[in-house]
Amino acid sequence: MAELVERVVLPSLGGRAQCAGRLTDAAVLRFPGGRLAFTTDSYVVQPLEFPGGDIGKLAVCGTINDLAVVGAVPAALSLALVLEEGLEISLLRRVLESAGAAAARAGVEVVTGDTKVVERGGLAGMVINTSGVGVLLETARLGFDRVRGGDKVLLSGPLGEHGLAVMSRRKGLSFAAELESDCAAICGLTRALVERLGPAVRWMRDPTRGGLAATLAELAAGAGMDLEIDEAEIPENRAARAAAEMLGLDLLTVANEGKLLAVVAAESAGEARRMLADQPIARRAAIIGEVRGAAENPLVELVTRVGGRRVVQMPYGEELPRIC
Amino acid sequence: MAELVERVVLPSLGGRAQCAGRLTDAAVLRFPGGRLAFTTDSYVVQPLEFPGGDIGKLAVCGTINDLAVVGAVPAALSLALVLEEGLEISLLRRVLESAGAAAARAGVEVVTGDTKVVERGGLAGMVINTSGVGVLLETARLGFDRVRGGDKVLLSGPLGEHGLAVMSRRKGLSFAAELESDCAAICGLTRALVERLGPAVRWMRDPTRGGLAATLAELAAGAGMDLEIDEAEIPENRAARAAAEMLGLDLLTVANEGKLLAVVAAESAGEARRMLADQPIARRAAIIGEVRGAAENPLVELVTRVGGRRVVQMPYGEELPRIC
Repeated sequence: MAELVERVVLPSLGGRAQCAGRLTDAAVLRFPGGRLAFTTDSYVVQPLEFPGGDIGKLAVCGTINDLAVVGAVPAALSLALVLEEGLEISLLRRVLESAGAAAARAGVEVVTGDTKVVERGGLAGMVINTSGVGVLLETARLGFDRVRGGDKVLLSGPLGEHGLAVMSRRKGLSFAAELESDCAAICGLTRALVERLGPAVRWMRDPTRGGLAATLAELAAGAGMDLEIDEAEIPENRAARAAAEMLGLDLLTVANEGKLLAVVAAESAGEARRMLADQPIARRAAIIGEVRGAAENPLVELVTRVGGRRVVQMPYGEELPRIC
Repeated sequence: MAELVERVVLPSLGGRAQCAGRLTDAAVLRFPGGRLAFTTDSYVVQPLEFPGGDIGKLAVCGTINDLAVVGAVPAALSLALVLEEGLEISLLRRVLESAGAAAARAGVEVVTGDTKVVERGGLAGMVINTSGVGVLLETARLGFDRVRGGDKVLLSGPLGEHGLAVMSRRKGLSFAAELESDCAAICGLTRALVERLGPAVRWMRDPTRGGLAATLAELAAGAGMDLEIDEAEIPENRAARAAAEMLGLDLLTVANEGKLLAVVAAESAGEARRMLADQPIARRAAIIGEVRGAAENPLVELVTRVGGRRVVQMPYGEELPRIC
C-alpha cells in the first residue's frame, strides 16, 4: 500500500509537498485570518460494529484526531457514504446515529455530505469518507523540527484496545469479551495542551495503524533524533495484553483510535501529564520516555521491564494487522 | 436515493441545517477572516474513462464546481481513493494524472489524500471522494432569497454533452462518436461574474444530475418564483440532440459537468453574458429566460420552439439517467 501511494498515487497526482508525507495527516493552509487544517480519510473496517464503536464513530473520531494532532480545533466535518446495495437500513441508521453523536460530543458539526450506492460485491457493507477543516490554535508551534534533545514523550493511555477489540470480534474470541475499542476524539486533550503550554508542545500524533511502534519510528526518523522509551512506564490494559499474547501480537504495533502521543519540553512535561490525566479519556496518561538527541540513523530504543534493551522497528507486512 | 438521504441519513446524522438541502452543495462557514465554503462528493462512474474525461477529472471538476457556485474561489482539495483489488495500475495512473492536470488548470492544489483497497466485487474499479475548501469572494451575495422578479436566467453553453458521451460509450453507440463530455471546472466563470457584478449575481448552480430541468425546478421551488424559459435560446449541440433523440431522452434532464446556470439582475445580464462568452468553455453563453415573480406553487414554463408552452418538472425515476 505504501508503495502504491509513493510510486503511483503521488507522482501521478502531482500536488504539493504535504502529499509527500504520511497521507492521513492534515495539511495546514494559510487563509485570510489564520491557519486552517484540512484532512480526509476513507474508513473501511470489518466488522462494521465492534465493542466500543462502529465505522461511523471511527470515521468521525479519526478525522477529528487528524486535525487535533496538528494543533487545530476541528470546526466542520463532511461525511460521504458509499453503500453496498442490500445494506440493512437499521444498521446504517445505527452507524449514522453513532457518527452524529461522536461529532456532537466533540463539539463539531457535520455540515455537508454525500451518499452513493454501488452494486453488491466487495465493499463489505459500506465505506465512509470523512473530511474535516479546523482552525489552528494561535499558540500551536508543532513539527518534527521543533523536537529537541531532552524533550519528554507522553502517552495518554494503554495500548491496543481498538485493534484487539476489532480482531477479537472478528475471530469470535470470547476471552476478550471485556475489551472495548478506545475509539474517541482526542481534540480536548490536544487543545488543552497547546492552549496552556504553547510552544512547549513540540509534536503530536495519534498512534493508529501500526500502533505506537510505527508512530515512534516515524517521530525518530522525522525529527532525526534517537528516542528512549521505558516499557515499564507504558500504561497497560490487562485484557489487551492477554489478547495480544493469545494472538501472538506485539502490543506496540496494534492500532489505537483514541490515544495521543505528544512530545513536550522537559520542564512542562509534568504539567502536561497532569492536564491530560484531568480528562476522562486520559486518566492513565504517562511520561513514557524521552528524546535523546540528534542521530544520523535515529533509533527508538525500548528499555524493557527486565532492564534489557531492544530496538523498536517500523512494523511492516505480517506484523501490521489490517484493521482499518 | 433522495428518500434514503431524507428519511435515514439526515435524521440519523443530526448536524446542521445545510445538510437538509441538496447534499452536494457546499456549506458556507464563518471563520476568523472570512467565509469559507466546504463540500464533499464521492464519484462512481461507468465507464471510468469516457470521451472528454474520466473519473479523476470528473471528481476534481465536480468538487471545484460545487465550491464555485456558492461564490467561492476553490483553495484546496482532498482526494481519497477506494480501489478495487486487481485494478489496472496503468488505468489508475491515467486517472490520477488527469485529476492532477484538472486541478492544476483550475489553479487548485490537492493537499491531502488517502488510499484504501477493498476486495474485488461490486465497486467497478474505484470510487474517488474529493472534498474541497474555498474562500468566498467578498462581493458574493448569493441565495434563493436574493432572486427577484425580472432577473434573467443565463446558461453557459449547450446541454447534455456529459451524460450523452458517457451513455453512448456505455452502450457502444457509434453515431455519437463526436460527442465529448463537457467536464470542466467553471470557477473561472463564477469568479468573473461575482467579482465584476457582485450582488447583481443572485444565484448560481451547475446543472449536473437531473440536468437543467432539475436545476430549474430547484430554483423555482427554492426562490418561490415562476420561471419562463425560451427553448429557442438554449444553446444546442447537434450531436447531443441527435443522441438524446435516439435514446429517447429529454436533453433538459441529461447531466452536464461543465455548465453554469446563473440568475443575474436584468440590467447586468447582457454584460454577464458577454463576460461568460469571453471564456473558451462558455463561448455560447445565452440568456435563456427570466424570473417572472413570486408564486405559491412556483412553476418552470418552457416556451417551445414552435411557440407552445409546457411545464418543466423535476425529473425522477426512469427519466433521471444514472450516470454518476
